[in-house]
Order: sequence, then structure tokens, then C-alpha cells
Amino acid sequence: MISDPVFNQKLSILIKGTHVNQKTQDILIDAGKIISIAPNQNTNDAELIIDGTKTLALPGLINTHTHAAMSLLRGYADDMHLQEWLSEKIWPLEAHLTGDDVYIGTKLACLEMIRSGTTAFNDMYFFMDRAAQAVDEAGIRAQLSHGMITFGDPKKFAAEQKATKDLVACVKQMNNSRITAAVAPHAPYTVPPDHMRWCAEFSAEEDIGLHIHVSETKSEVDSVLEMYGKKPALLLDECGCLTERTVLAHGCWLDSDECALIAKRSASVAYSPCSNMKLATGRALPYDELEGVGATVGLSTDGCSSNNNLDMFEEMKFASLYQKAFWGKDTTLPAHEVLRMATESGAKAMRIPSGVLAPHAPADIVLIGLLHPSMVPLYNDVSNIVYAANGGMVETVLCDGALLMHERIIPGEADILEKARTTALDLISRRN
Amino acid sequence: MISDPVFNQKLSILIKGTHVNQKTQDILIDAGKIISIAPNQNTNDAELIIDGTKTLALPGLINTHTHAAMSLLRGYADDMHLQEWLSEKIWPLEAHLTGDDVYIGTKLACLEMIRSGTTAFNDMYFFMDRAAQAVDEAGIRAQLSHGMITFGDPKKFAAEQKATKDLVACVKQMNNSRITAAVAPHAPYTVPPDHMRWCAEFSAEEDIGLHIHVSETKSEVDSVLEMYGKKPALLLDECGCLTERTVLAHGCWLDSDECALIAKRSASVAYSPCSNMKLATGRALPYDELEGVGATVGLSTDGCSSNNNLDMFEEMKFASLYQKAFWGKDTTLPAHEVLRMATESGAKAMRIPSGVLAPHAPADIVLIGLLHPSMVPLYNDVSNIVYAANGGMVETVLCDGALLMHERIIPGEADILEKARTTALDLISRRN
Repeated sequence: MISDPVFNQKLSILIKGTHVNQKTQDILIDAGKIISIAPNQNTNDAELIIDGTKTLALPGLINTHTHAAMSLLRGYADDMHLQEWLSEKIWPLEAHLTGDDVYIGTKLACLEMIRSGTTAFNDMYFFMDRAAQAVDEAGIRAQLSHGMITFGDPKKFAAEQKATKDLVACVKQMNNSRITAAVAPHAPYTVPPDHMRWCAEFSAEEDIGLHIHVSETKSEVDSVLEMYGKKPALLLDECGCLTERTVLAHGCWLDSDECALIAKRSASVAYSPCSNMKLATGRALPYDELEGVGATVGLSTDGCSSNNNLDMFEEMKFASLYQKAFWGKDTTLPAHEVLRMATESGAKAMRIPSGVLAPHAPADIVLIGLLHPSMVPLYNDVSNIVYAANGGMVETVLCDGALLMHERIIPGEADILEKARTTALDLISRRN
Repeated sequence: MISDPVFNQKLSILIKGTHVNQKTQDILIDAGKIISIAPNQNTNDAELIIDGTKTLALPGLINTHTHAAMSLLRGYADDMHLQEWLSEKIWPLEAHLTGDDVYIGTKLACLEMIRSGTTAFNDMYFFMDRAAQAVDEAGIRAQLSHGMITFGDPKKFAAEQKATKDLVACVKQMNNSRITAAVAPHAPYTVPPDHMRWCAEFSAEEDIGLHIHVSETKSEVDSVLEMYGKKPALLLDECGCLTERTVLAHGCWLDSDECALIAKRSASVAYSPCSNMKLATGRALPYDELEGVGATVGLSTDGCSSNNNLDMFEEMKFASLYQKAFWGKDTTLPAHEVLRMATESGAKAMRIPSGVLAPHAPADIVLIGLLHPSMVPLYNDVSNIVYAANGGMVETVLCDGALLMHERIIPGEADILEKARTTALDLISRRN
């Protein structure tokens, strides 16, 4: 039991008797960081004591590619051809989205992420100042970017540059260490090389991330080949867009040369198995090739309209099983590599020191309940986490040393759910 | 709130104000059956009132192929080549299993199924009298069979016949309407045609199910072709094993002629997407072909060592996404067909009148909590159930008109988990 459930404050906290790497440990936290992980630590030092018995501790999971506010579009349209789904359903509804919608949608998404053990996400959408406000209030980490689509139109480009610069200024002003900005050219087939070059330069000048969709479908790869005579990753590299700050979303159709180049440039790839399967993109991420050349591969849910949730535990299982099924190889992407993908590699992709449970690391910690039939027996922690658990088994979540959920309670949850419900109905009514 | 939480008894029960097919309804239950589904029913008639507001009601889910007691092997070995996994890990451990292990393993599995909304399962394993005892106590439905492997050996065949007959006698003596027996020749490559013929005759004589693995991998199909000169379903049909009592597990490699024959004979197929993907069986069930010819396709988790849980909500999502990804068709197996697979079609496969919410149907009912971020917004109940929910959102479960779980409480759960934990450790120690 918690001595007194103080939420959303950076305190000195001691988690007593949780399982860390198959051992019973206490975790001492102060000023947002893990101080020590050791058995039987002194309880007098902590302002807050959390009983960790019958739980297993993990680093908070990291979602390297999503569109958080699309939570409001969950279940609005499914089981359609990708292009019809976008042009007849998603885009017409998105045209009616307001800043207030994005704020509530991001609040809903953050709630869902906290509940399922995610403490950091890499986002691309619009009205991102409002998304930043939602993340600030929710207490988790995010790298936020305005998705730029120009199709080569100079006016559109100027507007998208302004939106990106405004977001960067807004995030600077917030001065919240949990929130960073990024620049996000939508994709090589929607943003021409000269506009991508500006994005690369802006990312370097500001030392911020660059977030882009790459090689999700074969037809977009063919478009890029036809337009520019080269594969998307090569084009990106020519534009200066492949650096250690870059996260490439999807990457299903990357070839061997592209994988090698991505690794050489220390760029990261965000693997979205559920979305790729649901939209039938036709090829699974070439994980073994990327792993073989030492590229960083993070895990991601994509947006809720192509998934339809933000549960990174579920995504971990899909990640491994889709690789095994698609590439016909039952030994590929084993459980421990999946967990690394969802933690350490995700942190590397987002350039944050999270993703590990170790002294000096940020106190982004998830406690999973062990008194659940799916967690028994516990021959292998990591196997159970990846193949048997789901987000519903998360009991307690800390981010940046503050308690966000405890014993499945998140303060204010009912209010956010009700606001999201009415906001979604209102959005639909405007579309009709 | 419940007026008084009386578990495991067939009572007259009124579920007030739950969502059924997008409408707010009361469900009146008596003597194990649904009496009526209508708004604002009189509460004076019921012995037990359950508050269904903020929940959505579904028929209990039906798992058409599993090996329940393999819950004890969860996480024991993963990420291996199928044959090494079986011969080096699974079979040597199974050789040490006792009747007591199967009893505890099946108790653990039933607990996991109840918690994730499954109220009926089709099982194949050994020491099945002890599995029957576990199911009797758990309160759910099962069709139980002893997996017969003879490799043509007459002595082995005699022993397997005896085990099957003993199980049928044991189930008859139990006289529990929730429990039926079946005959289970393991697969066409492990049981020769003359032994399969006996199984078919025994199934007809006793009017019991016939449960068999078919065409899981290409190599087993090739073996059958080499041994008998025909595809597995044709061989089964020649042996009299294709009837309306038959459940064919897996069926990944069925061809068009086999699909048509299965439909013609009114046999059912149990689709196990997680297991098929994890073990990289190389081909997804030809669902569109089976659907096209009108065959019954149920959903199933397979055993916990190749999944590694029994969550049918998770399995529903895998079911649709694997079809879309493997067959490259984003419109195939839409959400409403997945839900039908996990309910009505499963009931048909198991020849029970469950799987629907309607007057006269068995009161096998699951209430899913709607106050969860993944269930907001609720544009489309079925989409959220299939693509966004997981088993952890199940709040309340009734089977055969008795309450088994209420507000996530299952009486006796902690005791079963502890026994399963120690039993698993003991099993491993005997193997070592």
C-alpha cells in the first residue's frame, strides 16, 4: 500500500519489494531520477512509499510513432481499402478538427498510454500547441511535431514552416523537460526535396528531432522512384534528412541498401506492426536486416484509427508474431529483443535517457501486477511480458519521478473520458 | 452495484441498463437461460440484481481449440524452431505431467478464460477426467477429449481407445450439462486411417464431437500426401471423420477442394492466428475461401505454450489483422465477422446453443466496462470490441445463468494462482 497517494508531484519515492530482472528489489527515486536499486532500502528517507510486492517493474514503454489525437477517430471507419478509407472517411473528418478537439483527443490518448504503461511518445499531427498543453497536464513525455504536407506548393510550404516554427517557440516557452519539439515532413511523396532540405537544416539548427513516414506501401516507394529516380531513404539522405535525430515511421518496404544507409547515419526506424497488418501494407519491416546492420528499431502503435488502441504490450506481441509469420522464421525477433525495442531503442530514437531501470536514469517506471492468471507461472519474466501480458495488467505508473497511476487509479480520468465522448459526438455532427 | 454477490449459483438474475447492440436494455435470466431482453424490466422478480450501466453485454466467447492445462508451460520455451521446441522442450516436460498437474493447469486456464470473457472451450489433452473435475468446479462449458496418438501401433491404439472410452464414461457419470466429451485422433499424420475410422464410428455411436489437428504446416500435408496419396481433408472424409460433429484445428494449408468438402460435410474449422504466427506455419487460414463456400469457422487460442495466453479478445484482433496482412486484402474478415467467429460460429462448432444474446439462449454473458480510454469514443461497438479491447476490460461473467466473476472478482482466485505457481515449479524440478 501507498502511505499517501500523492499524484503528479516529483517526490522522493521508495518502491518496496518489486521484481526487477527476476530479483526482489527496492527502487529509490528522487528529483525525477532513479537513485538506487537494491534490496531492503531504508524507508525513512522517502516522502512516499509504494508497496511493490506482487508486481514486476519495467521501464515505461516508449511509443516511437503515433498521432495521439486520432484517438477521437477510434472505430470511425475500419475494414476499408486504404485510399478510400483516407479520402472518404479520415481526411473529411480531420478537416473539421479544431484545436480543442486535438487537446481533448491528446488527453484521451495520454490517459490510454498511462493506463497501458507508456510514458513517452513521438507524435505527429496538427494544432500541436494544444497537444503540448495536454501532455504537460498528463505528466508523460512527448516529442511533438506538426505534420507538414506541401506537395511543392510554396504558399502551403510557408504556412507549414510557420506552424513548425510556432510549435518550436511554444515548446521552448513551456520549458518543460518532458516535452520536446520536432520537425515533421509528412513523407517523401508529399514533401519535395527542397522542402525536405529546409526541414533537415531546421532540425540541425534547433537540434530537434525529424519525424517522417517512409516506405509504408509499395505504391509510395514506386511514386518516389518515378518522381526522383531513387529509393526513399537515398532521397532522404541526399536532403540531409538521415541523421541520429531522425525517426522513420513504418519502413516496411526498405531494401538492403536503405537499411545499411539508415544504420550508417544512426537514424531510427519506428515499427508499427498492427497498423501495417490492418492496412495490409504488403510487407513486414525487414527487421533482421536492420538488426544485422545495427540500426535502431523502436516500436510504435501509429494512430488509433489504424490500430485501434495505444497498448504497447499488445504491440510487442504483434511485433514478434508478425515478423515470425511474414518472414517464415519462428526464431526471429525473440521476446528480449522486442522488449528492448519498446524501451531502450525507443529512448534512443527519441534521444531521451529513459528506457532502462538503472541508477541515474529518469524515474519512468511501470509496475505490472503478478496476481493475474496470464502471469502464472513466471518461468521467464520477459516472455510473459511480451507474449502473455496486456496493458490492462499495469497497476502503477511513474514518469519523471511523479506518480501518474496507482493501483489502476488515475485522478481525473472519468472527466477526461466524458469530455472525449462528447467531443467525438460533436465532431461527427459537424461532419454530417 | 450487485444487491448481494452470490457466485456460482443458478439464480433468477436481472442485469439492469447494459448496452446490447447499441441499445440500453435489461437482461432477465432464470434457470440458466435468458428470459427476456428489454428496457426497464421489473426488478421484483429477480433474486440478484446486477448494475449493467457503463457496460456493454456480449455473449460469452467460445474458444474452439486449446490444450487448457498447457497453461503450466506458459513461457517455458519460446522463439525456437517448431520441431526442436516440441522435441527438446515441450514433450520432455509433458512426459512428467501428472493428473494433479492437469487438474491445476486446467483450473488456471479456466480462471484465465473467465477473466477474459470466455465461457466455453474445446479441449484436447490427457488426464482428461481431471480436466473435467476442474471445469466442473470452474463453472464454464467444455468439450473435452483425450488426444490419441497411435502411429499405427495396435497396443498404443488399444490404450488410447480405453482412455477415450473412460473419459466418455466419466463425463456421462458427472451428468453436468456444461461438460461433454469428444474423441480426438491427434492428426492424420499421427493416427492411421483404420484408427481414424474407429474414431469416426465412436463419434457417431456416442453422438459426441470429433476434434483433430489438420494441415497446420506444409510438411505435415506433404507427409499425408506421401503416405496416403491424398490431401488430409479428403483422407479424413474417406475415414468418415468429416461430419457436423467435427472440429478441424488450424487448417492453414487447406486447398480450395478441401474447403468445399468441409463446407459440404458441415464440419467446422478452428482458426488459431496467434499460434500459427508464433510457430510460423507459413500460411494463414484460407478464410475467404471457407467463408465463400459457407463453412463454419470458429476462433481459438491453441495452448498457452504457443500463444501464450487464452485471451479471445486479443485473438479476435490477431484473427482479422493476420488475414488482412497475409492475403494482402484490407477489407477481409471485418470486425462483425470476427465477433461472429468468436461467438455464434464457435457455438455451432461445439454444437451448443450459446453464442447469442437472445431469449431462450443459455445465459452465457460477458459485461465489458465502457469506462476505459480504449473504449472511447464508441462510434461502433463491434469495432471497439474487436480492434481496441482486451480481456482485461471484462468486468462481469455469467455462464449457464450463474455469476462467475463480478467487478473483476473471482472467488478463490488467489488460491488457484498460488497452487498453479507451486505446481509449475514442482513440474520443472521433476524434469531437471
